[in-house]
Amino acid sequence: MITPDRVKGTRDFGPEDMLLRQRVVGIIRIIYEARGFVPIDTPALEKWEVLSAKGAGGDELLKETYNFEDLGSRRIGLRYDLTVPLIRYVSMNPNIPMPFKRYHYGPVWRYEESKPGRYREFYQFDIDTVGSQSMAADAECIATVAEALSKFRQYIGDFKIRINNRKLVEGVLNYLDITSEEQVIGEMRTIDKIQKLSREGLFKEFKTYKISAVQAERILDSLSRKGEIKQILSEMKKDLPKNEKIAAGLSELEETEKYLGAFGVLANCIFDASLVRGLGYYTGNVFEATLEGKNSGSIAGGGRYDKVIGLFLGKDVPAVGFSIGIERLLDLMKGKITPEPLTEIFVAAVSQDLLPEAIKISEKLRTQGKRVQFDLMGRNFSNQLKFADKIGAKEVWILGPRDMAKGEIVVKDMKTGKEERVKINSLINN
Amino acid sequence: MITPDRVKGTRDFGPEDMLLRQRVVGIIRIIYEARGFVPIDTPALEKWEVLSAKGAGGDELLKETYNFEDLGSRRIGLRYDLTVPLIRYVSMNPNIPMPFKRYHYGPVWRYEESKPGRYREFYQFDIDTVGSQSMAADAECIATVAEALSKFRQYIGDFKIRINNRKLVEGVLNYLDITSEEQVIGEMRTIDKIQKLSREGLFKEFKTYKISAVQAERILDSLSRKGEIKQILSEMKKDLPKNEKIAAGLSELEETEKYLGAFGVLANCIFDASLVRGLGYYTGNVFEATLEGKNSGSIAGGGRYDKVIGLFLGKDVPAVGFSIGIERLLDLMKGKITPEPLTEIFVAAVSQDLLPEAIKISEKLRTQGKRVQFDLMGRNFSNQLKFADKIGAKEVWILGPRDMAKGEIVVKDMKTGKEERVKINSLINN
Repeated sequence: MITPDRVKGTRDFGPEDMLLRQRVVGIIRIIYEARGFVPIDTPALEKWEVLSAKGAGGDELLKETYNFEDLGSRRIGLRYDLTVPLIRYVSMNPNIPMPFKRYHYGPVWRYEESKPGRYREFYQFDIDTVGSQSMAADAECIATVAEALSKFRQYIGDFKIRINNRKLVEGVLNYLDITSEEQVIGEMRTIDKIQKLSREGLFKEFKTYKISAVQAERILDSLSRKGEIKQILSEMKKDLPKNEKIAAGLSELEETEKYLGAFGVLANCIFDASLVRGLGYYTGNVFEATLEGKNSGSIAGGGRYDKVIGLFLGKDVPAVGFSIGIERLLDLMKGKITPEPLTEIFVAAVSQDLLPEAIKISEKLRTQGKRVQFDLMGRNFSNQLKFADKIGAKEVWILGPRDMAKGEIVVKDMKTGKEERVKINSLINN
Repeated sequence: MITPDRVKGTRDFGPEDMLLRQRVVGIIRIIYEARGFVPIDTPALEKWEVLSAKGAGGDELLKETYNFEDLGSRRIGLRYDLTVPLIRYVSMNPNIPMPFKRYHYGPVWRYEESKPGRYREFYQFDIDTVGSQSMAADAECIATVAEALSKFRQYIGDFKIRINNRKLVEGVLNYLDITSEEQVIGEMRTIDKIQKLSREGLFKEFKTYKISAVQAERILDSLSRKGEIKQILSEMKKDLPKNEKIAAGLSELEETEKYLGAFGVLANCIFDASLVRGLGYYTGNVFEATLEGKNSGSIAGGGRYDKVIGLFLGKDVPAVGFSIGIERLLDLMKGKITPEPLTEIFVAAVSQDLLPEAIKISEKLRTQGKRVQFDLMGRNFSNQLKFADKIGAKEVWILGPRDMAKGEIVVKDMKTGKEERVKINSLINN
């Protein structure tokens, strides 16, 4: 006999998990579709050449990507995110109308260190707008995710969407004579760890990218700006040196702020100079939704990546996306939400030969929109009642031979325990 | 530059595919949940020991199962069906309340010959009732799938659910002195090909299982019975020899017929002695939904398998399941259904500086439950109109600077072309 076991880092989703998941995904889908984001799905399997295409952001992730040769000796990998499939999809559908606004909910696979709350197979839920250079697209992603998260405020509490701009950060680094791509990206990775590392740790890491203590000091100073977007923008316009990238970053942020105002979500947004997000592929605005309360971390992340979609096309295609941390969201909701009982009425037949009658009545009730079950286990009456109670049925309809002969039935309210004798016809036909 | 390409045998689902898929799955889910079937999901990855557990039905399928060693040198496979994961799930959750009635919609992977309409990654949609020996569970699966299929009758046409019983078939074979397990299973596999093979072909294949021409003749005779269940049952009770298996099979069918009557689905069901279904693990009733019309093939299949669930538990656990061929169903519906346009209103700003106004109006319309988009491409007015037309918007709301100054807006009906000048406030507040 083999001991049944799951693959390490994977989960089964039982009925309670799935009902919650379906409900949450359903609520978010409606919000996404109302703003014109449409669903797509792509295979779990991708060619290794596609997954490992340079610039798709996977350099680090490739190390932990499940991959193997198929029976035809082709190297295949399980997708590690939903962005690379989007890039491939857009490349293979060159006549797709622009903007292409899609959402995608699906599993991804990463062979990561197994930790509580971290899985090797987990779900992502992304929206992306491909083809638009307008900051209105950035603002729309932010407003859309803000609306989705606000639907779950009673479970996750308040949130803020922190916004920064990569061009602005790069402009400041350039001004500090940090200009090589390697240094710029390294520096951004370091800033990304600002919550985790001590000041000494940060300096040490900056040093590995050949950034001097003086430079590091000024970088950290510049990262302290945080607050209302309009306010910080006007300060930065006065304080910051003028170079092309700084000007571009400020102008993008200014435009984004204008559209966020039109969407009515400015109260949920703040500027945060310390936000850069780790991935190398962002080119403009970056954003992250953070839950209020100490160390509660982020619940969504995204930004503009104008250089990546065109990877296979040989030309730039602008794009911006925002991804909800759906696993985190579901974890936060679990146990805080009482699902509606799936079965409203349990039809109990006191003797087994009345089972066909129980089925007939169940089916009639179902045509009235009720969710109904009956006994499939040959249980005696008292065990049927116990089972009905266990599955949370609101009512038990009791079929006894003498009652049935008179065309009657007993309806028991499981909450109050009250029983009522009723004519079957009147119950089923109303 | 790499040419973007999919893994052979896999598909992308674009928005139209996905919207249809979500709608169909949503409709079926409601029907399943109304009868108490609850959703579960399990990982794509399963341990190879689990997938290859003897008796799980995978002997043939294992040859075409994607499998590989993970970075921790464990052999892992992609699930090839949703039944093996169910078996594992039940085994790992011994305290699950019985009956356990679950549905599962999800992808499975098989490295099969690539053919039109056959994919290496495709979806299955199963219901199974675990724990109940009652034929009422079989009847419930049949009634549930019948209701689901009937929802799509306008696209797939009429269907019949053919029913047979493995005990009955085995009993007849035993009577013909075909008793070894190998012979019985081989014979059933041969019968399963009855539509595909010629009479000579069948005899030849019977011969490989050491079944004589005389036996084969009588088997083929016995397979010709087909028709109303009650009628055939009474004929068989008179005609067939009496042995234990034949008696058990007839009694199970009789009971099933009684419950099917209670469910009101007898008109959709027929007895068909030639139905056995290929899989070795069925132990009682087998059933298959077939579309009317020559060679249109099956759209759902299932049966009772009382020996498989207990594979890891060391004891029998009764189970019955029915699986809709969801890929086939979707293929049949494709192109026959016109999806509702996702965007009802396109808000067009005649000049770019009115975009924030367009956003504000869009957001207000959305709070009224409308699905709204606006221009993200910096298009001129006539191109915005063209785009609105392309995405099927019913109305375009036109924002011009002079109209806006007067608090007015022009609403264009895209079907009639009629334009109406309206006060913004009256439009947004009603």
